[in-house]
Amino acid sequence: MSQLPTVVDVGRVAGVSRQTVSNVLNSPGLVKPATRERVEAAIAQLGYRPHASARRLRTQKSSTLGIRLDPMQNGISGAVLDRFLHALTEKADQRGLRVMLFTALDPEDEIRQFKRLRDGADVDAFVLTATFHGDPRTEWLIENNVPFVTFGRPWGIDDMNDPRHLWVDVDGWSGLHEATGHLLGEGRLRIAYLGWPRPSGTGDDRRRGWRDAMESDGRLSAAELDALDLSTVDGVAQGREALQALLDSGTPVDAVVCASDSLALGALLAVGADIPVIGYDNTPVAEAVGLSSVEQPLDEVAAGALELLLGPTGGEIVGWSSSSTDPRHRLVTPHLVMRERSAITGVR
Amino acid sequence: MSQLPTVVDVGRVAGVSRQTVSNVLNSPGLVKPATRERVEAAIAQLGYRPHASARRLRTQKSSTLGIRLDPMQNGISGAVLDRFLHALTEKADQRGLRVMLFTALDPEDEIRQFKRLRDGADVDAFVLTATFHGDPRTEWLIENNVPFVTFGRPWGIDDMNDPRHLWVDVDGWSGLHEATGHLLGEGRLRIAYLGWPRPSGTGDDRRRGWRDAMESDGRLSAAELDALDLSTVDGVAQGREALQALLDSGTPVDAVVCASDSLALGALLAVGADIPVIGYDNTPVAEAVGLSSVEQPLDEVAAGALELLLGPTGGEIVGWSSSSTDPRHRLVTPHLVMRERSAITGVR
Repeated sequence: MSQLPTVVDVGRVAGVSRQTVSNVLNSPGLVKPATRERVEAAIAQLGYRPHASARRLRTQKSSTLGIRLDPMQNGISGAVLDRFLHALTEKADQRGLRVMLFTALDPEDEIRQFKRLRDGADVDAFVLTATFHGDPRTEWLIENNVPFVTFGRPWGIDDMNDPRHLWVDVDGWSGLHEATGHLLGEGRLRIAYLGWPRPSGTGDDRRRGWRDAMESDGRLSAAELDALDLSTVDGVAQGREALQALLDSGTPVDAVVCASDSLALGALLAVGADIPVIGYDNTPVAEAVGLSSVEQPLDEVAAGALELLLGPTGGEIVGWSSSSTDPRHRLVTPHLVMRERSAITGVR
Repeated sequence: MSQLPTVVDVGRVAGVSRQTVSNVLNSPGLVKPATRERVEAAIAQLGYRPHASARRLRTQKSSTLGIRLDPMQNGISGAVLDRFLHALTEKADQRGLRVMLFTALDPEDEIRQFKRLRDGADVDAFVLTATFHGDPRTEWLIENNVPFVTFGRPWGIDDMNDPRHLWVDVDGWSGLHEATGHLLGEGRLRIAYLGWPRPSGTGDDRRRGWRDAMESDGRLSAAELDALDLSTVDGVAQGREALQALLDSGTPVDAVVCASDSLALGALLAVGADIPVIGYDNTPVAEAVGLSSVEQPLDEVAAGALELLLGPTGGEIVGWSSSSTDPRHRLVTPHLVMRERSAITGVR
């Protein structure tokens, strides 16, 4: 066995430290390409074989994050989680981590998958999306001491600042507050909000952003605001119907801000070209039809999730068991993308 | 060591065979939920720990497929590969396989990733997308005896039937041929094709589908067809400009078939409501604006890719080293989704 080449041998041939060889093997994103190539040439020359399974058995580290991927949802906004997955994979790769996908039928099945991946040392930590009130998954992960981070706040939990629950989220309140403020600044007064039925963690947060901006403006009464506060399930047809019903009721509307691009596209089809509509998520559909929207900076979300799990640099999972007193949560500010809506109003 | 519980012990407690326990551990999708729960209860009761790394070291099988995930492309059609990833993850899960994501800067970097994942026994086989003429990745995989399947034909290679190159693809020729035939059947004669500049494997295949349908119809001359054969880079603005230029030249147009939904949306904005336009990919944008399109059955593509790698059932990689004489390729037929375009023509 002592005849087999070791990491030290590889380092000697490549003229680098043992640590650099280890970085090439475990966190290639940290190593300059030229150095990486020299180390890889040495590995090839010596026939050194870094066996991940043996390494894993020794270190109990897989350098892998697990994330559940659901069957594709048709619809306009489903792409947000896909964009997050791309960003996460890229940011993880820069730290020498990989992303493992799995599916699950429901939260209980997902917990079974957690167990299997944890027991098999396939995954070091999990990234969860679409958390909900009383989510049994985060409870299980905390109880079992498995590192995780959620994209999404633990809505409805008493202590959102529980240091054992790492989370990153986008500040939907701020997104709608900015969109509403922008329209008020352009001289629009009667701005409607088109969102989802209560209770909805993200939906109610976005609604509050609109409402707070309108109340700060102060020119409309509470009853007038109530009349402009619309709820419907997500969808283009539903958004169109909800706006049409408002217009049919004789309530004047100057502008519309929405909880999603699907609703916004529906609103836009109901109100026509003269009334500005702002969506949420800045999807390809918004770009294609020239719809203004609120963009979630998913690169920042992914980078934030990894920083909470791993610290500012490196590829070693820290997780919530860290004694660090750093903030264990990250609220990312979205930004408004205004468009002239040239594409859709150009239809002859 | 002999004191540790084994798979046989688990089977005895659960009242199932050793093979069933193994299935629960390796291919849970094959086992009925009730049986799975019984086995999992026995595993918990005995404290049995199936260690994936130890198993991998023994079997050299990771039960994992590797696929490269690129940074998110903005745009309408980028979602096709995401939809494929969802379908692949789901179909793989049903066979007890997982999907590992990685990124790469270019084909050479991707080959470096192949090496690293193969040497570490992290991945049993690779799924490649976006193959191109003279692709060094497939050459490397064949030379190094690593099982793989591509979503996309090896365009430009002399022997597309090389049994060492497993591939699944969607028959774009058939999609455009059907779309064009449908419009001819509705009495449209002067049907334009809006696609990408030559050479493009997929683009030229789709163009040929249109051209063959038009030539079978036989009422237009070759020169007339040439005038209706439009090329531009992908994009809504580009599609709109190309169609506008054709209309400005005084060439009459009855209908338009396109290589993508982006081009189709552009065409639709140029031609207005009376001239039917058919896109390709049936993206959420097509659904949202009521654009007819050609749907790629990505579930079938994913299932086909796994069948080629693994055989009709089971989770053991067969790959091209199999002595099987089964076909090693799969061409999946897309289908036409006709819509009334009610959403976009309803804009006031």
